[in-house]
Amino acid sequence: MIPSEKQDEFRVPKRLQGMQKSNIRQIFDSALPGSINFGLGQPDLRTAECIRNEAIRVINEEPLGYTSHAGLPQLREKIVGEYPHLDITADDCIITVGSNEALFCALMTLCEEGDEVMVPNPAFPAYPAINNLADAETVLYRLPKEKGFGFDANEFEKVITDKTRAVIVLSPSNPTGRTLSKEDLQTIAKILEGTGIYAVSDEIYRELYFTDERPASISEFYEKTLVVGGLSKNMSMTGWRMGWLLGVPEAMKKALVVHGYNTVCASTITQKASLAYWTEDGKREEAEAREIYKSRRDLLVKLIDEELGLKAVSPEGAFYSMVDISEIGEEMDIVNKFLENRVITVNGLGFGDEAKGFLRISFCASEDDIREGIKRMKQALSI
Amino acid sequence: MIPSEKQDEFRVPKRLQGMQKSNIRQIFDSALPGSINFGLGQPDLRTAECIRNEAIRVINEEPLGYTSHAGLPQLREKIVGEYPHLDITADDCIITVGSNEALFCALMTLCEEGDEVMVPNPAFPAYPAINNLADAETVLYRLPKEKGFGFDANEFEKVITDKTRAVIVLSPSNPTGRTLSKEDLQTIAKILEGTGIYAVSDEIYRELYFTDERPASISEFYEKTLVVGGLSKNMSMTGWRMGWLLGVPEAMKKALVVHGYNTVCASTITQKASLAYWTEDGKREEAEAREIYKSRRDLLVKLIDEELGLKAVSPEGAFYSMVDISEIGEEMDIVNKFLENRVITVNGLGFGDEAKGFLRISFCASEDDIREGIKRMKQALSI
Repeated sequence: MIPSEKQDEFRVPKRLQGMQKSNIRQIFDSALPGSINFGLGQPDLRTAECIRNEAIRVINEEPLGYTSHAGLPQLREKIVGEYPHLDITADDCIITVGSNEALFCALMTLCEEGDEVMVPNPAFPAYPAINNLADAETVLYRLPKEKGFGFDANEFEKVITDKTRAVIVLSPSNPTGRTLSKEDLQTIAKILEGTGIYAVSDEIYRELYFTDERPASISEFYEKTLVVGGLSKNMSMTGWRMGWLLGVPEAMKKALVVHGYNTVCASTITQKASLAYWTEDGKREEAEAREIYKSRRDLLVKLIDEELGLKAVSPEGAFYSMVDISEIGEEMDIVNKFLENRVITVNGLGFGDEAKGFLRISFCASEDDIREGIKRMKQALSI
Repeated sequence: MIPSEKQDEFRVPKRLQGMQKSNIRQIFDSALPGSINFGLGQPDLRTAECIRNEAIRVINEEPLGYTSHAGLPQLREKIVGEYPHLDITADDCIITVGSNEALFCALMTLCEEGDEVMVPNPAFPAYPAINNLADAETVLYRLPKEKGFGFDANEFEKVITDKTRAVIVLSPSNPTGRTLSKEDLQTIAKILEGTGIYAVSDEIYRELYFTDERPASISEFYEKTLVVGGLSKNMSMTGWRMGWLLGVPEAMKKALVVHGYNTVCASTITQKASLAYWTEDGKREEAEAREIYKSRRDLLVKLIDEELGLKAVSPEGAFYSMVDISEIGEEMDIVNKFLENRVITVNGLGFGDEAKGFLRISFCASEDDIREGIKRMKQALSI
C-alpha cells in the first residue's frame, strides 16, 4: 500500500524535540577582531610533541585500516591500568571518538523511555541533550552557588526517585573548576548504594588538577560506575577525538554494540599515537601543561580580585573559573560590554540556572593575554 | 525517595534488545596462520600517498583543535561540489566519523518508534542494527538471487506501508557488488514520489566502479534523499574515519544536533588531510586503485568459473563478488572447508536470507593471493 502525500514539514522525532540551543555560538560570532578569548573550552596549547611525533611515525610506517570496534588492545590495557582499583580487564574498555561519544554510548546503553538521569546544576550543557537523545528525562541536582558550587548531599538525595537510572558525576567540573572531595564521593556512594543507579563519571578534566593530590574517582567508592575519560584536555588533543568508556562488564558489553554501530572505531592514527602518552615524555608533557594552567589560574584569580574587585571561584582543576557579577549587572549586559571591549566570556546561565549571575572565564590563554584581558574588562566596567 | 535494591542483572534498553550477532568475527577467529583473506571488508592497499603526506604536513604545521560540529567549511564545499544536481550548500553537509556515523545520524534524525525502514536483502548487516538503535522496525525488500541480486520493482513496492519512514538504497552493494542502473533508480523515485518517504542512499562504494559510467545516485531523481558517502574505500582510509551526510536542508539541521552531541566533530587531522583528495594527485590515486580492483575482479571471476566451476556474480562496483555454492554443500560446511585449507570467505546468510547458499568473496587481496586462494579452494573442494 502506498500512502498518500505526507506533510511537507520535517517531522522531528521525539528525541530531538525541545532541545535548547546554547547561546555560546552567538557570543563567539559577535566577537570583534583581536579579542582576548576567555570563552574557549579547549586548550590553546599545541598537541603534546610526543603524540604528534608518534602520529607521523605511524602514518609513515604502519597500516591504517580499522581497529577492532573496542580499539587497540594494547591501548585499552594502558587505560585500564589507570584504574587499578577496578576489577576489570581491557575487554571492559572501549576507545571512543572523544569523551563525548563515550557519554553518548553510556547513556544510550543505560537508558530508555521513562528513565531519569540526574545532572549537576551547573554543568556542561551536553548532558541534558544526550539524555534527550537517549529518551531519558533530565533531573537537575544543585551544586549551590552559596557553597561555591560545592557538593550538597541533601540537594543530591532529594531528587532521586524510583525512575532514576543514572547520575552524572563531574569532577573536576566544567564550568566551575571545582572537584569533588573524597568525602563528597563517599557520600554519593553511600546514598547510591543498593539503589541500582549507575554513576556515569565524567573525568575528562581529571589530569588537570591544581591540588596536591590527583582528584579521586567515584569508581573508587561505588561499583556501578561507568567512567568517561580521554586525552583531549591534558594532552591538548581535542581535534584528535580520543576518549574512553570503561567499567561494569555487563554494561560495557552492550555499550560496545552501540559504539560499533555508531562509529565503528576511533581514528587508528589517533589510537596508535595515543600510546605515546604512556611514556616518560608523555607524562612529562602532561605535567608541564598542568603547571602552565596552575600558574595562569593563580594569576587570573588574583587579577579578578585585585583589578576588578570581583569574586572568582578558585578552581581545583580544569581551566575555568566562575566570576560572580550578580552585583554589577545583568549577565548578558556584562558579556556584551566585555565583547565590545574585545574580551570573550561566556555567561553562566547556559550551564544551568544555578550559575545565573556568573560568567565562566577560561584560562586557555597566555599570561600576557590574561593581563591584557583583565585590563580590558576593567576598562569596560568603568565606562 | 530512595528505591529499594534493584535486580542485579543488567536491564537492556529496548533499542538494544534482539540484536543479532554476526558470525563474521567467529570466522576470522578460526582462521589459520598464513590464510588468504577473501573475507576483508576494507582495502588492503595503503592510504593514498597524497592524503598521508598532507596529514603529516598538517600535524607539523597546523592547529589541531576542534573543527565546527559540521566540519571544515572548505571540505564541505568540496563534498557538496560532487553533487552538482542538488540545490544545497555546504550548510547542508556534515563531516562524520566514517560513513557509519552518517548512517547512524540519518536514522536517528528520521526515525522514531513506530516507523519502518526498508532495507535491501541481502545487504550490509549494520542497517537493521542501526534501525534498532533508532527505535525503527526493519522491513526487508528482496533483491532476488534469481536476478543476480538485481533490483525488482515489485519486491520493493510491496513492502511499503504507511509506516515506512525511510528506505536504504545501496549502490554499489556490499555484499553483491551490483549497482542500481539509472532505470532502477528512476523506478524507485517514481514509486516513492509523493509518499514523503526518505531515501537514505549509501554511496560509500560509489567511486569504486568497473562500468564505463560512474554509478548514478538516487538523489539525482528523488528529492527527499539523504546521501551517505566517504573516502574510506576509494582512498583506502578506513581507519581515518572520514564520511559525510548531506541532503534535504530541514533534515540536515536536525542531523547536525545528533552529530554534535554524539561525536562533536570528525578528527581534525583526517578532515584537513582529506582536502588532498580534491587535487590532481588525489583523483589520480583514486583512478589507480579503481584499475587495481577492476583487474582483480576480472581475474577472480574468471578463476572461479574456470578453476572451481562455480558461478560468481560479476560485480559492477565495490570489491565483492557473490559465489553460488548452493549445489555443492551447506554454507558453513564450505566456509569451514576453505578455512581448513587457509582461505577466509564469509557466508551469505549473514547479509540476509536471500544470500543463503552464497559466499561473499572480497578482492581486497593481490592478484598473486587471488591465484593462490583459488588454488587452495579448489584443493579444499576436491578432498
